[in-house]
Amino acid sequence: NPEWGIEGSKIIKRTFKFKNFKKALEFVNRVGEIAESEGHHPDIELSWGKVTVKFTTHKIGGLSTNDFIMAAKIDEVEI
Amino acid sequence: NPEWGIEGSKIIKRTFKFKNFKKALEFVNRVGEIAESEGHHPDIELSWGKVTVKFTTHKIGGLSTNDFIMAAKIDEVEI
Repeated sequence: NPEWGIEGSKIIKRTFKFKNFKKALEFVNRVGEIAESEGHHPDIELSWGKVTVKFTTHKIGGLSTNDFIMAAKIDEVEI
Repeated sequence: NPEWGIEGSKIIKRTFKFKNFKKALEFVNRVGEIAESEGHHPDIELSWGKVTVKFTTHKIGGLSTNDFIMAAKIDEVEI
């Protein structure tokens, strides 16, 4: 898996690969739990064996510390 | 919610709106169950109160009856 990348200085994103749709969906749910508990929600793209997670902080129109904290927490998820 | 739209004659997509992230994620899971049981998987974009579902049939590089059957089943989901 490639690491988090920055898109246009306002978004960080990372793509995670999985062996099937079910595993990918499981990961989306884990990310969702983290998002709910932290009160900070990413945009998520789910396809067959792949999930892309994107963070930005809409309130400030760019990246905040919160985005990087979320990214670190998501990196700890194991499926 | 707008109905299903066709994108470039190869993809059908529809955006569903929800009152929060949790409801949107719940919908993604319901779509996931249908996808698994039918063996046909969409691309899904999940953001705070919004889910976009896209179907295409990769095998034929365009739309198949299956895509429309899936769309109809997803329309029946109630959250």
